[in-house]
Amino acid sequence: MPPPGDRDDIEALIDLMARLPGLGPRSARRAVLHLIARRGPLLTPLAELTRKVADTARECLNCGNIGTSDICAICRDERRATGLLCVVEDVADLWAMERSGQFRGRYHVLGGTLSALDAVGPEDLGIPRLVDRIAAEGISEVILALNATIDGQTTAHYIADALEGRVTLSSLAQGVPIGGELDYLDDGTITAALAARKPL
Amino acid sequence: MPPPGDRDDIEALIDLMARLPGLGPRSARRAVLHLIARRGPLLTPLAELTRKVADTARECLNCGNIGTSDICAICRDERRATGLLCVVEDVADLWAMERSGQFRGRYHVLGGTLSALDAVGPEDLGIPRLVDRIAAEGISEVILALNATIDGQTTAHYIADALEGRVTLSSLAQGVPIGGELDYLDDGTITAALAARKPL
Repeated sequence: MPPPGDRDDIEALIDLMARLPGLGPRSARRAVLHLIARRGPLLTPLAELTRKVADTARECLNCGNIGTSDICAICRDERRATGLLCVVEDVADLWAMERSGQFRGRYHVLGGTLSALDAVGPEDLGIPRLVDRIAAEGISEVILALNATIDGQTTAHYIADALEGRVTLSSLAQGVPIGGELDYLDDGTITAALAARKPL
Repeated sequence: MPPPGDRDDIEALIDLMARLPGLGPRSARRAVLHLIARRGPLLTPLAELTRKVADTARECLNCGNIGTSDICAICRDERRATGLLCVVEDVADLWAMERSGQFRGRYHVLGGTLSALDAVGPEDLGIPRLVDRIAAEGISEVILALNATIDGQTTAHYIADALEGRVTLSSLAQGVPIGGELDYLDDGTITAALAARKPL
């Protein structure tokens, strides 16, 4: 903390910044001093944008994406009504999929994974709503793009069971990442890559 | 980046956050999603505080500390007119000194170190103003609390020359940090600690 005195707002700002993921007390202090030293190019725009985003950001009522309208741009885009739906754990995963630029369907954001320990059930993840969407939007294919973790895969299995027979189902391939070196990969990845080897 | 569409403000906020020290594009995305998910406790207060700090934060005209008034709380505090002045490189260093709670004098923030390469001269660091302050405020002792880097020590030598004969001068002790293990310390630190060894 900075010393007490006339810096209460600065101190409070440091406290808030320290609560962001990836920042601690020390980096929050550095960040705030950096902002104050760059008032025009950084601090003032940050104040305006945080205000705007606090006022306008909301979850898409249809898919759970974060945007500035009740129905997000992806759900509004008629060109993306391709009958193809991609199920992801959270909004960051949706954005990661979009950065690849390869998927032209729509999304369904679960907002987490099933967890008996944390009492997260299918309703909490909107899985019944997912089933409804598939009928309502005429979805014929679902890609499960969940994380390759135990929780992610458990959730994928549950969803696969729930959608069995209604749609064509697939999940992301598992294997060696592009640029990956075998020596640095875990056994599980190598096992998966070997099992799913491609004929040349 | 999130996909294009109706998320321009969110995208702009991520871009700005990614320019903070310690954050990159990925952690900025995580931070912004974290903020949006915690609008009440985090995003709205952050918007208010960044606005307030953007409006009120300023450099103390006397010492260079960051505060919300023209003369900072430390310079205004008459109990700290002890004739003792601590010279630091930047405001973060001043705050670090204050956290120790041991120094009861006032400060002089240089705002950097002398550097021939970056054309930073004594005027840029307010060293002539430091000499004036010593006369004006009746300073009798100056502690040089500069970083133990080449640039920090070069600057300390320059200031020591400039103040020679006017005040009692000292610099922070160099040695083994509290909790430090010899095996993990560099040769320079061990050499310094050995040279400055204390009789028991």
